[in-house]
Amino acid sequence: SEKTPFELTIGLHNQFRYTGFSRDNDTSIDAAGNVRTIPNRNDFNVNRGRLVFSGYALDKDLGFYANIDYSTVASSSIQPLLTWISFRHSDTFTLYMGLGKVPGTWEWQQTSRYTLGADRTLATTFFRPSISAGMWGIGKLGDSLSYTVFVGNGLNTLTLRSADLDTNFVYSGLAWWEPLGDFGVGFSDQEYHQDLAIRIGHGLTQTRNDSTSSDQSGAEQTVVRLSDGTRLIEPNALAPGVTVNAFDVWLYTVHLGLKKQGYSLSSEVFMRWLRNIEGTGGAELDSLFDNGFYVQGGAFVIPKKLELFARGSAVTGNFGTGSEVAAGLNWHLFEKRSARLTLDVTDVRDSPAEQSRTGYVAGETGTLVRMQLWTFF
Amino acid sequence: SEKTPFELTIGLHNQFRYTGFSRDNDTSIDAAGNVRTIPNRNDFNVNRGRLVFSGYALDKDLGFYANIDYSTVASSSIQPLLTWISFRHSDTFTLYMGLGKVPGTWEWQQTSRYTLGADRTLATTFFRPSISAGMWGIGKLGDSLSYTVFVGNGLNTLTLRSADLDTNFVYSGLAWWEPLGDFGVGFSDQEYHQDLAIRIGHGLTQTRNDSTSSDQSGAEQTVVRLSDGTRLIEPNALAPGVTVNAFDVWLYTVHLGLKKQGYSLSSEVFMRWLRNIEGTGGAELDSLFDNGFYVQGGAFVIPKKLELFARGSAVTGNFGTGSEVAAGLNWHLFEKRSARLTLDVTDVRDSPAEQSRTGYVAGETGTLVRMQLWTFF
Amino acid sequence: SEKTPFELTIGLHNQFRYTGFSRDNDTSIDAAGNVRTIPNRNDFNVNRGRLVFSGYALDKDLGFYANIDYSTVASSSIQPLLTWISFRHSDTFTLYMGLGKVPGTWEWQQTSRYTLGADRTLATTFFRPSISAGMWGIGKLGDSLSYTVFVGNGLNTLTLRSADLDTNFVYSGLAWWEPLGDFGVGFSDQEYHQDLAIRIGHGLTQTRNDSTSSDQSGAEQTVVRLSDGTRLIEPNALAPGVTVNAFDVWLYTVHLGLKKQGYSLSSEVFMRWLRNIEGTGGAELDSLFDNGFYVQGGAFVIPKKLELFARGSAVTGNFGTGSEVAAGLNWHLFEKRSARLTLDVTDVRDSPAEQSRTGYVAGETGTLVRMQLWTFF
Repeated sequence: SEKTPFELTIGLHNQFRYTGFSRDNDTSIDAAGNVRTIPNRNDFNVNRGRLVFSGYALDKDLGFYANIDYSTVASSSIQPLLTWISFRHSDTFTLYMGLGKVPGTWEWQQTSRYTLGADRTLATTFFRPSISAGMWGIGKLGDSLSYTVFVGNGLNTLTLRSADLDTNFVYSGLAWWEPLGDFGVGFSDQEYHQDLAIRIGHGLTQTRNDSTSSDQSGAEQTVVRLSDGTRLIEPNALAPGVTVNAFDVWLYTVHLGLKKQGYSLSSEVFMRWLRNIEGTGGAELDSLFDNGFYVQGGAFVIPKKLELFARGSAVTGNFGTGSEVAAGLNWHLFEKRSARLTLDVTDVRDSPAEQSRTGYVAGETGTLVRMQLWTFF
Repeated sequence: SEKTPFELTIGLHNQFRYTGFSRDNDTSIDAAGNVRTIPNRNDFNVNRGRLVFSGYALDKDLGFYANIDYSTVASSSIQPLLTWISFRHSDTFTLYMGLGKVPGTWEWQQTSRYTLGADRTLATTFFRPSISAGMWGIGKLGDSLSYTVFVGNGLNTLTLRSADLDTNFVYSGLAWWEPLGDFGVGFSDQEYHQDLAIRIGHGLTQTRNDSTSSDQSGAEQTVVRLSDGTRLIEPNALAPGVTVNAFDVWLYTVHLGLKKQGYSLSSEVFMRWLRNIEGTGGAELDSLFDNGFYVQGGAFVIPKKLELFARGSAVTGNFGTGSEVAAGLNWHLFEKRSARLTLDVTDVRDSPAEQSRTGYVAGETGTLVRMQLWTFF
Repeated sequence: SEKTPFELTIGLHNQFRYTGFSRDNDTSIDAAGNVRTIPNRNDFNVNRGRLVFSGYALDKDLGFYANIDYSTVASSSIQPLLTWISFRHSDTFTLYMGLGKVPGTWEWQQTSRYTLGADRTLATTFFRPSISAGMWGIGKLGDSLSYTVFVGNGLNTLTLRSADLDTNFVYSGLAWWEPLGDFGVGFSDQEYHQDLAIRIGHGLTQTRNDSTSSDQSGAEQTVVRLSDGTRLIEPNALAPGVTVNAFDVWLYTVHLGLKKQGYSLSSEVFMRWLRNIEGTGGAELDSLFDNGFYVQGGAFVIPKKLELFARGSAVTGNFGTGSEVAAGLNWHLFEKRSARLTLDVTDVRDSPAEQSRTGYVAGETGTLVRMQLWTFF
């Protein structure tokens, strides 16, 4: 009615994937001396299914969004993933309150539906923050400059409860410039830009991770890994007899993207500092620095439809280097992003990252094959 | 079509909250001698998100309702909260079958969207029953008398499975009288009653809690606490070497509400008897009696829009007294209940209650600050 | 719009049940020597609640389906149950990708909304496969022959994650013939066929269950039980000191259904071979063979409305026989399947099956009473 503006849209996303992994070794050993089993894989999954309810209510500028995620890979088979209430002030600023993405890095901040390959890169999976409850703002300054700034509970608190949290916030921002006009979403030039489109940006993320009130290493701290995939708070990871229970994280990233006539090139560089590291027994440990990058390029051999791509990414730090090299193809069934078949083959070396959606397992070396169908509306 | 009457409505509720808690002490000791850690808090949460599917099908009197709850505070991040099929006979009686609220107390039986402050009071959180599968009836006797009666599995069986249940039912009823016309929902006079509106009511709840078939204290029994917050079935809580494994609960409550020209006053008194308490080794223990109350008042300084409120609640029993005193404000963004900003500050003393949604932790003393936005449609 | 074909339908299913169980014995002993507790029951449950989102998008032949299950009985109170993307080629073949039913047996492949009694039989519950991620095809060959073929991760991987899976697939097919015209759904002659309708079919299911890469008996193997209800991988189940960690499953089933003028008769025979059974320490164990059946008949005493039914089912194998005999009634409130009240009483002897939805507990003997209302639209 005119009295109560209202609109509700229901969306459904579905990512079906076959995953095969052929390991080079049965096990690996982490920095704390633990033996990690590396499994072979040959299985089907719904990696990401989402029911999305969105719209506005009471006022056109009072938006709502609820993205309910389900899958056969995450530890919770169904969960609220992203959900917020938003107040739009102007193109310059919209305020969001809820469960949102800590922006941090480009490839992470882009939806998983628009990755170039089957999923995000190894380097992004290692460095990126994740999802947290908090407040954030998104807006544009002029025609070509966009930003998002975020304050919330921590780097990755999606599955945590208040007893698992410390009392520190995470702060994160990402800003990017599209000087030659609209770059579009994602990384592929699926739009087929006639003229060169450029995106240049950078992001900064900072948080302090304290132990919980019971002085134990906390659940909030488990997401940070060393460059060989060992969790930072694994006992003995940094020194014999010491378990890390507090540290600062600083993450700075720079990214560049190009698109033209079906060709695309994109890259991001990651720098992460772990500082003021404290451990059990009052131990004060040396700071750590890790860096990494990805570079990926795509070329449509049939415009808007069939794309070949290649990519590589690496993570380097005090505990060694992990890397991947991949090649594959995207077939857009209806010349749109919304039904995409992807096949890629990835050579993974000493994975520093582990995540159920992407399929990386910490410490693994071998060949990862993914065939998937992404559909959404 | 005319042949098959059908209507489906989708609703979305969202409660976003900042919670701060500054503890007076790091720990407290419960009746069983356990040391409880009291955490400070500084975090954002989606305390209650709900997707609500409701309507009728096949016949206008055959209603359905499914309320799927998601949050960042409950142990299950998403769960069916309230879901039923209903058959309407007349205004006098509608039968419900499903997962519903054990009515028990006024503030509990009212939706959490209509609390006076940011959430329900400490006394309600301590005494109230919760949600159970069962059958219930709701109706009106004449114009001014309303009732709800309920039979179900137990006081709080939302997250329990049949192996966790004993074979006793819970019985609960709530009846209230609105002699001067419609009192309206909730506690605030957001409706701005020109003339005095009154609500008077009372409720009775009874159940036997037996151990499970394996003779262990059961999951169904964990919800009952002593007046210092100790779980009744905590080993040694009532006597050294004894663990309670069976008891009767009787809860009687009386309530009164007043609303007029933006002013409101509401109060409820709770009386709870724990009887026929049995423990390990055949121990028979003395009955326990706990009582409590809340009183809360609100005044709109801008009619329908800005309300100031204060409230207090307390629980007293054999294991001491816990209490809270709070003050705060409600700002109704669109002069409706459906978008409400609340700020309240609560002084909590020796909390006897613990619940993730409200933010109370058993044994805590300190200052609780909550800022929240409730939106729903 | 014409450019983007799109349709979304939302369905809601609700099965509300009272379950009573009166045990003949407090405990039973399994093949491994473990004492199993048999609980009495007296409780209400939402056994199956489902939100179903289905339709097509982008193209009329690109279908989607997401069935989100919630209940008070399953270990996950809410979960994605069946969810897929489908491509329709013709009536002869539609391809599905997602989380689907391993077809295997008739009563299992039929939706639980169309069982003759309150739930599936004891024999089906014991033998049937379950749900897995995979790819499958469904189609008709001519007017009267239907089939479904499936390849996926395993017999029952709904709640498993990739680390729980072995690298073997499950293969399953079901084909049936309706020579005298449309048999209709389910088992009751709720349609009131004027002339005899017949359905004859069979199914074959095969998989290898290996231990996981860590050489432990895996989660994927827990669903297979011996004929006394003992899990096959229970230590000492087949031989002292031996735990099974690999085996082949072959399941062959034959079924027959008849419907005419409100009368119906249906039966299925199950044959299961466990072969190449291996255990800890390189043990090679003898193959096992189990067989079973159900027979069930219904008669409408008021056509399309009130049906009386009886059924029996049994499982026999190397570890003894379990069985059930049941009688009950179905009352279709609106002369449709979509609102059905069922009451049945079942005498269960030495249950070989255990499943939370149906209410069977391994090893139990006693009387099971179920009263339920199934509604869906």
